[in-house]
Parts: sequence; C-alpha cells; structure tokens
Amino acid sequence: MKSKINRASQISISTQLFEILKTDILQNEWQENTRFYSIRQVSIKYNVNPNTVLKVFQTLEEQGYIYSIRGKGSFIKKGYNLSISQRMAPILNTFKFGQNMKKGEINLSNGAPPSRYFPIDEYKKIIEKILKDIDFSKKLMGYQDIQGLESLRKVIPDYLKKFKINVSKEDIIIGSGTQSILSLICSTFNQIPKKTILVSNPTYQNAVHIFKNYYNIENINLEVDGWNMREFESILKKKRIDFIYIMTNFQNPTGISWAKWKKNKLLQLSKKYDFYILEDECFCDFYYDKNIPTSLKSIDKYERVFYIKTFSKSVMPGISLGLFIPPKSFLDRFSLNKYFVDTTTSGLNQKFLEIYIKEGFLENHLCMLRDIYSKKMKYVIDKINKMSHLKVVYIPKGGFFLWLELANYIDGEKFYYKCRLRGLSILPGFLFDSSGETSYNIRLSILSAEIEEIDIGLNIIEDILKHCSGLPSQN
Amino acid sequence: MKSKINRASQISISTQLFEILKTDILQNEWQENTRFYSIRQVSIKYNVNPNTVLKVFQTLEEQGYIYSIRGKGSFIKKGYNLSISQRMAPILNTFKFGQNMKKGEINLSNGAPPSRYFPIDEYKKIIEKILKDIDFSKKLMGYQDIQGLESLRKVIPDYLKKFKINVSKEDIIIGSGTQSILSLICSTFNQIPKKTILVSNPTYQNAVHIFKNYYNIENINLEVDGWNMREFESILKKKRIDFIYIMTNFQNPTGISWAKWKKNKLLQLSKKYDFYILEDECFCDFYYDKNIPTSLKSIDKYERVFYIKTFSKSVMPGISLGLFIPPKSFLDRFSLNKYFVDTTTSGLNQKFLEIYIKEGFLENHLCMLRDIYSKKMKYVIDKINKMSHLKVVYIPKGGFFLWLELANYIDGEKFYYKCRLRGLSILPGFLFDSSGETSYNIRLSILSAEIEEIDIGLNIIEDILKHCSGLPSQN
Repeated sequence: MKSKINRASQISISTQLFEILKTDILQNEWQENTRFYSIRQVSIKYNVNPNTVLKVFQTLEEQGYIYSIRGKGSFIKKGYNLSISQRMAPILNTFKFGQNMKKGEINLSNGAPPSRYFPIDEYKKIIEKILKDIDFSKKLMGYQDIQGLESLRKVIPDYLKKFKINVSKEDIIIGSGTQSILSLICSTFNQIPKKTILVSNPTYQNAVHIFKNYYNIENINLEVDGWNMREFESILKKKRIDFIYIMTNFQNPTGISWAKWKKNKLLQLSKKYDFYILEDECFCDFYYDKNIPTSLKSIDKYERVFYIKTFSKSVMPGISLGLFIPPKSFLDRFSLNKYFVDTTTSGLNQKFLEIYIKEGFLENHLCMLRDIYSKKMKYVIDKINKMSHLKVVYIPKGGFFLWLELANYIDGEKFYYKCRLRGLSILPGFLFDSSGETSYNIRLSILSAEIEEIDIGLNIIEDILKHCSGLPSQN
Repeated sequence: MKSKINRASQISISTQLFEILKTDILQNEWQENTRFYSIRQVSIKYNVNPNTVLKVFQTLEEQGYIYSIRGKGSFIKKGYNLSISQRMAPILNTFKFGQNMKKGEINLSNGAPPSRYFPIDEYKKIIEKILKDIDFSKKLMGYQDIQGLESLRKVIPDYLKKFKINVSKEDIIIGSGTQSILSLICSTFNQIPKKTILVSNPTYQNAVHIFKNYYNIENINLEVDGWNMREFESILKKKRIDFIYIMTNFQNPTGISWAKWKKNKLLQLSKKYDFYILEDECFCDFYYDKNIPTSLKSIDKYERVFYIKTFSKSVMPGISLGLFIPPKSFLDRFSLNKYFVDTTTSGLNQKFLEIYIKEGFLENHLCMLRDIYSKKMKYVIDKINKMSHLKVVYIPKGGFFLWLELANYIDGEKFYYKCRLRGLSILPGFLFDSSGETSYNIRLSILSAEIEEIDIGLNIIEDILKHCSGLPSQN
C-alpha cells in the first residue's frame, strides 16, 4: 500500500483508491486466497471514509480481484489476470440477480423492461380465470403438445400478419424463450465436423455463448446499414458457413436496422451458398414511428430463415415464452428434438398468452411501451448531441439501445467501472465484441430509467468524460 | 393386396389386416408419396368393417408406413425401412400430445403422474395469494437469480435432510426440470474431443438422446442389483469414461435399486478413474416401504456426484422445476453457463414450490402418492405372477415401473402394436435399449390406470399372449 490519494485531483477519491489497490494487487503478485487488507486498514492508511472503502472493495470484487467471506474479510482471487470471460463475469454478476440495481443507482444498462411496465394486473386476472376451471388447469399443468398449445398457435398467425409473415398454426413451435430456442437449434445440429456460424461484431453475446458450446464462430463487422455484402460474399467464398445469426431490426447493442436491399441480398446469398439464417426478431415490436420493420422471414422465398421471437420483452420474462418458425422441412426434426431436450414450456403461461393476444391486451401494451420508449430515446439522443467527447454512432428507429463512441480513446471497460463507482450502470462495448479487444464504445439502454434519472445518469457521464478526456495514457 | 383374412384364426381381424397391409408395403416397394389404398377399397376387398380398417390405417401411420392428408387419403411415407429413431418416432408421437390417450384406452405406459393427482387446488390458492402482492409478483415475473430464488433454496436443505443429503442454499441450482439440467451439464462440457458417457442398458432414453447431441455413448448391462462391477472396471481400464449416467433407485424402466456396496464401489471408482456421476434421482420420493432410498449424493465423499431431481413427478410437470446439486467446485461454471443458456426458470413457480414445501403440502402429497402407487404396484405384480408367458424381471421397491419379460421370444415391439390395436398402451423394451435390437421386454407403468382399468389391461395382455405364444416364427 504505497501511493497517495490526491485530494486536489478532479478524479474522485474512490476512483483513485480503486486504482491504487488494483495496482497493488497486480504489482505485488499476491498469492491466491491470501487475506487482503481490511476495510479498516485501508480507511486509516488513506484517511478515507470506510463507506467509500467498502464501495471500492465491492468494485474490486466485481472485477474479480478479490472475494469476501462474511465476517472474515477479503481475500485474493485466483486468476486476476483476466480473460475475456473473466472480465465479463463481474459485469454479468450484476445481472445475475434479476438485474436488480442497488437502491439509488441509475440504470442505463438493462436489457429487459423494468418490472413496473409488466402487465401483472392482466396476468393476475387471466390466470385466476384459467385456474377457476380445475379440470382444464390440470391439463395445462401436465406435459403439453411439444409444438405448443394448439389454441395459442391458432392466434399467432393473426398477430404476425402485421409483420407480413404468413404462417399457419402447423408452422409454429412455441419455445421457452430465445435462449432455449437457440439451444434447441444448436443441439439439433451438433454434428462433427463442427458447424460454423457467422455473427455480427458487435452482437448480443449471450447468443454467441450458446453458439460457442457447439459451433465455430466467425465474425463480420456490422456497418450502419448492415454487413458489407462484398466482404460477406468473400467470406462465403473462402469458408463453409452453415448458419448466420442476425438481428436486422434495432440490433442489440447498436440499434442498427439493415437496409432493405441488404436483407434481400442476404436471402439470395443464403440460397446460393446454402446457409441458414437464425433471425432473432427480439425487438421488432418496438418501432418508434409507424413504419413496421421488415423481417427476413416475411421476404423469405427460399425457406432459409429460422425465425425466433421472444415474448420476454413484449410481455414479461416470467412467462418464459418464445416463438420459433423454422423452414417447414425442419419442423418434424425440431419437434422431436424438443421432445428430448425441452418439455417444460409452461401450458398455463401459453394459455395466458393466447388470451392476452386474442383479447387485444398485447397490442395495447405494446402501443404504450412504444410511446414511452420512443420518447425516452429521443430525450437521450437530444441531450447527448449537446455533450462533447461522446458520439452517437447510430440513431435507432426502434428498440432499447443506443450505441455511443467515447472520444479520446477512452476505454469503455474502464469507463464502465468509473460509472459504477458513481452509482451509474451502463454496459461497456467489449461485452458485445467477440474479440474481447479494447472497445471505445458503450451501450445505453432507455428501458429502466425515468427522464429525471436519465438526466442524472447523463450528467455523471458528462462529468466523468471531462475528467478522463485527453490522451489514452492519461486515463 | 393378396392374402386373406382367416376368420377362424384366434388372431384378431385387425392384427391380421395390419400384417397383410404392412407386408404389402414392404414387399411391393411402393414409391414414396404414392397414394395408398383407400379405406373403402380395403374394406370391400377384405370384407372388414371400415372402422376396423381405419384403426389399422392409424396403426400403419403410427408405425411410419403411411401418412394421411385429410380429404385426400393415405400415402406411402418415405423410409419405411425404419431406423431405431424412426421406429421410436411413432411411439413417441403418442407422447407428443401430453401423453393423452384416446378416450377409453387403457394407459399402462405413462411416465408422468396423471393429472387427477395434480395438487391444483393448492397451486391455485398459493398462486392467487402470491399474485395479491402486485409489486412482489412483478419481481417474480422478471429475470431471476440465475441460481434460483434464494428463499426457495433456503427450504430445500430441510427437504433433503430426509435423504441424508447435507447441503446449504449456496450449493443448489434450481433448473427447469431434468432435461433442462442435463442439457445444461452437456453444453457446459461440450468440448472436442467429445467426452464419453456410460449409461445403463436399458435406461431412460430421453436422457440418452440429449447425451447423443454431445457425447460418445457407451453401454453396460444393468443387472438386478446394479452393474457388474468387474465388467465396469474393465471398461474403465480400456476406455476413458468422463461421465456415467445413473438412477440407482427405482430405475426407469426396470425399477431396479442398486445394492449398497455397489453404490459405494461406484464412488470409489469415480475417484480412482476420475469420472463424474450424473445421478438422476427422479423417483426417490416414491419408496413403497418406510425405507428411504440412499442416493449416491448422500454418501459422496469425493465430490463426484451431479445430483439431479425433478419436481415434475412429485408435484406436477407444469411447474417446470428441478433441483441440481453439482460438486461445489463446479457451481460457478454452471451458474454462468445457465445465465447463457437458460434464464427462463419461472420465479412464480419457484415461489409456489417454496411455500408448497415449507407449509408441508409436498410431504402430505407424497404420502398420498406413495400409498396409491405401492398398492397399485402390488396389485399388478400379484396378478402377473398368476399369468403365464410373462415374467416379472424385478420386484421394485418404489417408483412407477414394472419390467416384464415376454416368453417364447415374443418381440416387445410387435407386442406393443398388438396392444395398441386392442386399446391398451404399454411400452416396448427396445425404446430403452441403446442398441435398438429386438427386445423381449415390455415396461408397465402403474401411474395412470385405476385398479379396474389395470384389470382390463392385464386381461388384454393375457389374451394377446395366448394368441402369440409358441415359436418365434408363429408370432
């Protein structure tokens, strides 16, 4: 414990202390499981309030440098020389518990709608109504038709007409959410030699983590209107690509929507080079203007698209339901494999969703959410456009996310921890980058925070930016 | 259409007609998708009631020889020269729809408790109580602690004490049922070179189907007190075995419980040969006498056991919950992978289960089920012991299943279809055999049928046996 806190510095005491202790751990090669300093020791040594020390210790723990045992103190954690998944782990830990923030923290990171928007009143009413019929409820609590409740599958085609997707109930598989459907796809095609899947960079890494369990991953940069189609075709010529994973509308994390011609080109290439498209239409319900986005499925002449759509965002995560529409020729294969790997899709929640859609609740709910989200997104963008050192990469036409570039080579990961220390949660760009390289991007989400909180959050960002602007070495 | 129905024969008309039409398809090499005979044609040609013909057509369809298009007739299906999974498919099809039988059919095949036993009244009361607290319900409908609701994990250790399993809430992962937990394990260890898993023959093939997506499968015969430990060790000496999958109590399909010394030996070998044990304790709650079965987990000194236990059988499938206790050193790894592959474990149902356990409902419910199941099992065994051509392989001390051997080389698969034609559902042994070879076994389940139905079912079996007793060629 050398170094000193510079009280004249514009850098906060907690940030300084964090850097001092981190450097101490890294430079002095502490052995795993040795006892680290106590909060009291650090507090006395640096003349810093114990609460501030506690906050810094929590950040050290989140970053994976130390762990603590209640009543025994803090200890050095193994492997603080961190790999990408280790670097991810402490950040993901903040999501492990239902993405609950500590009280008073500002949440600009959440990927799920906050619980205050959940239609729990309707859920309660509909569930209670269903449960009144005891015999029918018993049926719903048994094993279900593996393809999904037939009466639910009957109302889905109407709902999808809005997106110009024409299907019948036989074409649909109801799954337990996006991850479960991706796992179903992966395990259905888990042969040797391993298949190869091409994904955007950046992209939603939870999907990539599922793919990694099964496939070789290839990356291609995402530009503001989609992939560079020449680059894509040159990859296809060089390598066998079996699948691509894609969100062509309001992508996570960038918010980007693909140009229409690129969507068409994609489908043509899928036929020419014989690959299949995993289309994750997670956000298609959340368009800001009246322009309903075009999914690949709706223009898929060649039966190449595996269409996936969760209801976790449009209704709530707790119903654990998603929609899966593979090309017709794969239906039997997926149904049989689903029988083996996932029989748990809730009958009761399927019945709820059926009624929720059929009686118009879903459309009303989405109208409300679209209105809220589009207003908040506009507010955030307007405010950021007035800030320096921060660039909006893409103005999204829907969805939840805003992708920003930090000026002056500010590392998004360091920036994330600085925000955490100030009680603000954002997500660093490297989390969405398969290479795990330093990223100067951050992702903001407009889901959780109200306008007043957004104000506070953006002020914190502005303040931090002021203090870490300059050359990279000064960060 | 040659051959003739022999009306003097003891073999039923429908069975004869089925064999005639099947032989016709196999011998005449019909092309895929050609139109098959109409029901009317067959009815006239053989002078058989159209309803009987319809029943035979349905069996041909179930067996995968034909498919039918409403209003257009029946057509030849591709690949009627069937592989094991194709042979399984038509049988599994009867399970696809919630294992619902046609009205009037006798069910001696079900692996899940029938819905009349479901504790739906308690579910209704508890869920309605939870949903009264809107704010709390909203939290339950969001993403949950990936390891499981903490308050549920707190009540589990008490419940497990009965089985002499000592764990704390930190050791437990709540998953979405056995299949989901097995998939989680598999995807967590899906490396190249492929890992190898050793399973019993016969065993629960849904698990094997999950493993097949990931691992090499090896088999070892299950004897009446467990594996032959010398044979097992000689396998371990010859091959690298990474995992074994095992139900040491009331196994599916045989009902076999392992000898205690073999359980201990298994654990010693797991340390010596460095493999891990996937212990599926699906049936441990359903012991018939007062002897609570010993799980491997409860005697696992070496931290080798991945303990898996579903609540689908003890409560009902619709709550989609299971219990997973890996060795402590794997907890973080599984939690992180679960975050990627399965975030859908229902918070609401977890809260229900917590209350259902805490307030003693589960134990009461299990008492009732144990009583019902043990009485029915005793009844079935007593009756079968008086029948000829049928041998009880093992008298189970708990669980749902009775494993029988058909005399005179009667093929269990053919026997299955004969039963189906008579409105009785059992399961043929080959479904549980990894080799897919002809099996002279069948599995009976005592779950669904009441005593009177069991009587009818066993009478049908006796009657069929009379008609197909003799040498193999006469079947």
